[in-house]
This record gives sequence, C-alpha cells and structure tokens, in this order.
Amino acid sequence: MKLEMICTGEEILAGQVVDTNAAWLGERLMEQGIEMQRRVTVGDRLEDLVSVFQERSQSADVILVNGGLGPTEDDMSALAMAQAIGEGLVECAVWIERLEHWYASQGRTMPASNAKQALLPASAVMVDNPVGTACGFRVKLNKAWLFFTPGVPHEFKQMVDEQFIPFIVSEYNVTEKTQLHKLLTFGVGESSLADDLDKLVIPEGITLGYRSTMPHIEIKLFARGEQAASVLSETVEKVKTVLGDSLVSDRHSSLAAEVNQRLLEQGKSLSIAESCTMGGMANELLVQPNSAEYFHQAVIAINDASKKQLLNITTEIFEKYGATSIEMAVAMARSVRQPLDSDYALAISDIAEVEVDRRQRITVSIALVSQNNVWHQTIDIPFRRPEMFRSICAAVAYDMLRRALLGSPPIVTYPFIRRC
Amino acid sequence: MKLEMICTGEEILAGQVVDTNAAWLGERLMEQGIEMQRRVTVGDRLEDLVSVFQERSQSADVILVNGGLGPTEDDMSALAMAQAIGEGLVECAVWIERLEHWYASQGRTMPASNAKQALLPASAVMVDNPVGTACGFRVKLNKAWLFFTPGVPHEFKQMVDEQFIPFIVSEYNVTEKTQLHKLLTFGVGESSLADDLDKLVIPEGITLGYRSTMPHIEIKLFARGEQAASVLSETVEKVKTVLGDSLVSDRHSSLAAEVNQRLLEQGKSLSIAESCTMGGMANELLVQPNSAEYFHQAVIAINDASKKQLLNITTEIFEKYGATSIEMAVAMARSVRQPLDSDYALAISDIAEVEVDRRQRITVSIALVSQNNVWHQTIDIPFRRPEMFRSICAAVAYDMLRRALLGSPPIVTYPFIRRC
Repeated sequence: MKLEMICTGEEILAGQVVDTNAAWLGERLMEQGIEMQRRVTVGDRLEDLVSVFQERSQSADVILVNGGLGPTEDDMSALAMAQAIGEGLVECAVWIERLEHWYASQGRTMPASNAKQALLPASAVMVDNPVGTACGFRVKLNKAWLFFTPGVPHEFKQMVDEQFIPFIVSEYNVTEKTQLHKLLTFGVGESSLADDLDKLVIPEGITLGYRSTMPHIEIKLFARGEQAASVLSETVEKVKTVLGDSLVSDRHSSLAAEVNQRLLEQGKSLSIAESCTMGGMANELLVQPNSAEYFHQAVIAINDASKKQLLNITTEIFEKYGATSIEMAVAMARSVRQPLDSDYALAISDIAEVEVDRRQRITVSIALVSQNNVWHQTIDIPFRRPEMFRSICAAVAYDMLRRALLGSPPIVTYPFIRRC
Repeated sequence: MKLEMICTGEEILAGQVVDTNAAWLGERLMEQGIEMQRRVTVGDRLEDLVSVFQERSQSADVILVNGGLGPTEDDMSALAMAQAIGEGLVECAVWIERLEHWYASQGRTMPASNAKQALLPASAVMVDNPVGTACGFRVKLNKAWLFFTPGVPHEFKQMVDEQFIPFIVSEYNVTEKTQLHKLLTFGVGESSLADDLDKLVIPEGITLGYRSTMPHIEIKLFARGEQAASVLSETVEKVKTVLGDSLVSDRHSSLAAEVNQRLLEQGKSLSIAESCTMGGMANELLVQPNSAEYFHQAVIAINDASKKQLLNITTEIFEKYGATSIEMAVAMARSVRQPLDSDYALAISDIAEVEVDRRQRITVSIALVSQNNVWHQTIDIPFRRPEMFRSICAAVAYDMLRRALLGSPPIVTYPFIRRC
C-alpha cells in the first residue's frame, strides 16, 4: 500500500503554523508499522488543490488529506475534490441534521456558514466527527482512496485513531510487524558513530538511523517483519556494546528525562547552583514530570556579589582561584547542597575564555558533590552559539550525576569534548 | 517564479522531528514578499528522492531541497540528484580541503565518512557552508534550479539568508517592495482581536495576519507594493490604538526580549524568586543577549524548607498565609531583592488548586517590588498543560515589570485571565 498525506492551508505552507498534525500522524502510523511515502503541502488556492488531488491519486493507494473543512471561504477541500472528480457537491442530510441538533442543544441557531460543512462530493462516503462541526469524508479517484480530515488537532487525531487507521488496516490488510528502539548518545559525533557502527553486521530487515538532537545523537533501530523484530533486542545489545560510554539513555530521548527518572526511582534529592548556564540546567530538569519530588533548590548567581551573598563563596576562593575555577564550582555545589542536606548537588562555574592553538575556546568547571564525595572536571569547548554551549555544559553535568546514580565513575572521556 | 520546497528525511516524514525549517523558510520568504507554491516531504529512499527531483523540476522554477547532506548512509540527496540528472558524483576539491583543514585545526583527523560530504553531482555549483561540514550545492534540471541545503537548523538558516535568497532575488529579479510589521499582544484571544480589528479600514495592499504563539497573539501587517508600504506606519498606529493595553511589544516577538531590552536601556537591575514556574521565568530572560549586565540572581525554591532557608520566609508567613498567598510572593520578592539592593525583583508563589463554578482552576500570586514600591496580584487560570500555565505566569510577571519600567501602573486587566 502506498500511503501519502496532503496538508492544506496557507498558514502551514507560509510557516505561520508549524504542522504538528503531520508529525503526529507520521509517528502514529509508524507505531502501527505503516510507512508514509510522501507528504505534500499546498496553500488555499483551488486550482492547486484540484491538481494535487488529481496528480497524487495516480500514484498513491491512500491519501490522507488534512484541513480545509471549516465554514469559511478559504476552506475548499470538498469543492476542490468534487472538481477533481468532475462531480457536484451534494448536501449530506445526516450531517446537516447533526449540526442543527448540536446547535439546538446549545440553545443556539446554526450560523448559515456552517451549512457549507455538510456539502460533500456526490460520490463521497461521510466519516463521522463526534467532536466538531466538520465531518470527514472519503472518496475514490483513479487508484486512490482520498480520506479527508479536519485541521483542528484534537478532531484530526480522534478521526485518525477511530476511523482512518481501522479503515486502512481492513482495506489493505496491513499486518507487517514493526518495532523501533532508540538509543541516546552523547559526546561522539555522528560520523564517528557511523564509522564505528558500520563495522557491525546488522540483520536483514533492521535499519539503523541517526538523528541529531544537539548536543546528542539519537540512534534508531527499526525492525520490519516478524523475523527482524525477533532479533531486534540482540541487535540493540550489540549496538550498545559498540557505543560504550557514549550511550546515555536507552529509554528516553533526553538526558534530563533519564536523570529525572533515575532520581525518582532512587529517591535521591538534588540541588543546583549555576552561573553561565543561566538557569537552563535547573529548568531543563524541573520541567520533567514530578521533579518537585526530588528537587530541593536552585540558585542562579549571575554576578560575584550574588555568589558571595547567596552561596557564601569566600573572598579567598575569588582571589586565589577565580570565578571560573574548579574550586569555585565545588564551593558552589557544596553551598547549595548543605542547607537541606541534599543527596546530590551540581554546580557550573563561570566561563573562562581562552586561546588554545590560536583559536578562541572557552573552559568551564563542573562539580558534583554528594554527602561524602566530590567529583569535578574542567572542560574545553569551542564557543559557537550560546544555547549550544549551555546544553553541552548541562549534558556533561547531568551525565556525571547519571553515572554517580548508577554507581559508576562519574567522569569519562567524551571524544568531542576536551578535558583540561 | 514558481518556488517549491522539498524536505527530505525519514525522521521528518515519520514525525519524529517537527519540520521547523520548513515553517521558518515560509516565514522568511514571506517577509521578502516571495510566495511558496508547494512543499513536498519525502523519506530517505533513493528511488523516492530521484523521482521527486525529476517530477518537481518539470513544473517549478526553483526548488529548495533541505536535508540529506550528512556523512551517514541515510543521507543521499547528492547521490539521488546525480541519478536524477543521469550523471556521476565528483569529489569537490575545495570542500575536501576545507574539511581536512577544519579537523586539523581541532587537532583531529577527519573521519572517513566525512569525505562523502564533498561528493557532488558533476554539474553542481558548490554553495559555501561556513558553519558546518555539509556544503550546499545547486544544480539545474529541466526548467528548475534545485538548491540543496543542510538539515541542521542554524546551518540551514544561514545558508538561506546568505546564499539562497540573494540567488533567487538576482536570478529571478524579485523586486516587489514588501514590508512587514509585527505587534505582540497578550491577554486577549484571537477571535476578540479579530472582531475589534475588523472594524478598521485597512488600506489596499496591506494584509493583517494573526499568529498564535501561546500565550501571545502576534499581529502581522504585511504591505505589498510601494503604495501600501508608504501607508504602513500610519496603519500600524491605528492598529496599536485599537489594541490598547493588550499591546506588549512593537519590536520584539517575545515579552522576555522586550523586558530584556528595557532593562538594558534603563540600566536597572533585577532579581527573581520562583517556585511553581520551575526556573522558567528566570531562564527565559537570562537567555536574552547581555542579560548578565542587569541580572543579579534567581532563587528557585521548590520546597518549603528551601523557601525558609534560602529566602528567609518566616514560619508566620507559612502558617498565617500559606505557600500560595500574596504575602508569600511579596516576601519572596523582597527577600531576593534585598542582598544586592536590586532595582526590581519579581516573585511567583506556589499554585493553589481551586474549584470555581465546578471547574478545576488554579490561582497563583505574583509580586513585583522595587526599592520603594510593591505591586501584587493573584490570577486565576484554567489548568491545561503545565508549560502553558508557566508561560502565562511568566508573561504576567514580565508585563508588570515592563509597565513599571514605562512608568505606567503595573497591573492591568487582561480579558482572558481572571484576577481574584
């Protein structure tokens, strides 16, 4: 079965709205082992719609069309489809009745413009929409079924789950088993990972994909078919062995989510002190579900006076070691850990700009302290964009904590980050 | 000129990544008065890529292709393009040299897989990428120029701005004068804004658009042609009058950016204490450029012990008023302001869950203090998603500060937020 999607709407084509329906559908279908072949996005011009319906119906088997079913003039999916087949629009009596009933139940009269939403191409089969005023419909042109869905996300999603997926599963006998496993890595570039993993023999039916979610690379193992699915977990293990220390999560797509879950599972508390990371390190963890269960406090001390006052950093540390030193990071971590006797505290110092081999680079010190231990490192990163720099710092810090929670040495070598 | 975009990548087609590059491009082109006709998204299958290149090059004049230039096997844009033209891949000597030089400057040897990134179709013109290892290229097939760009967002954006737009402007003589003005609003829904603005007479050639960037609505006035551009600023003034208190910035797309600039311009310092907003309020301001010039400190006190220890909140406040009270927010703001005598401090209390009219809602108290003044309010918001709740809280707090900096009363009524 060749499946495609057509997204309509000027606001999506012109970028004023990011097309989250399309992304959601892709994921939903993939979970069912159904692959999408192509997605076409067009604006609200009638002739563009007519031509894309005619054109795509010659190569696809099923086309899910999204949007253009509203009551206003720029909603013209039904009209375009009728023209593409060469037939008229006919009022769908069932839907008109539903609309009138719904408005009456709200004590309102149906606005005239809504009647348009019951006009469907003559040969269309109506598709119910229990949560909105736009019904869906499906219609056959050339070799394809075109299946029309509303643009409103929650209406769209319900129609896909309750009507579209059951329709294609029964119509096209989709039964192939598929499975997806994701692994999150940190500290190694995509090309080096690929060089290493290329040496593995990957069983037929399993494909390896890479996705860069800076500063991470996510590795995806996708198994298609019963046989491939049956050897997926042993393939995952082989890949994990090759990844070694660069593997930072085999269940989450972010290190913050991984650390959040470990802290919750182990019932350990955490405090954070930061400076150059601008509160991003605490915030990224705090937005994870249930973070308030383990998170004690965070102090973002931007200037020196604030480090002295809020974190009790001594003049000696400033004068002898400086704001960018290991000593500073350790003192910040100790100070933020102490008041509530948190199990762990993480701290990141200010940054030092340094010239290494005639290139501008920056170094930053990161400390992790627990009741009885202190770990620290100074890393050296090329400074490109501030967000990138901040997420690398947070990732190194989270990874130190993750390894400590696992009982492993918190400090490892990341090939793409230099340690001083 | 007929312009189309082809987005490549299994992760985009399958929905694991939302295609923000496509949305960004649409907006960027619109600002230049250039309209996109169609967008096609395909996965990483060689035959799909070859056929979409061949097919679209028969109707478009320019096709921007995004993605598939990376070092790994699933990156196959160059190979597919070469096959679509019927020519071979040739190593681009300039680019290989650049890659080797770059790796050498990092003290590393170039991984073997990167060499692939210098293989371009024989007739391609290389397009420089000063910030990444994937060069772009352009190539002519049938009537179209196909212009290949990397998928990494910051590399993509820089290439579009510095190379793609200048190329199409010169090649296709795009000269129509266009101008765009954006206004950021807060506190009024899109349909109410539209009802109010519908009463204005907007000059021909100017279109009014709405874009929801929750919790804000951005209003865009787009002028096409010399005449429309000449009356844009007076139209903007009329719109601003209608917007009244709901206008929160006429130069920035976020309230944090607006407040950041005002604090910098006025040389005022700020500290923040937060709880239920999880550090998001401080972080959103701190990631703005030069925020360290005015930002003193932020304390994120998640639990009560931390409020007592770090913010010196008295037992009396806890017992008499509680963690969600106005008194708590004011005490937090005073406490975080005091150590460095900051000009302003903002604080947000914990949330209280309440039942209003048999619906679950939440209330939260927000305080702004300066050396001599205290302002505070308790707002009542329906609780849907936590991120939405947090950004509404931060927006109300920022807007209080913005109004104070302007010398206006910091507390106003927002139609879609209830005040207790």
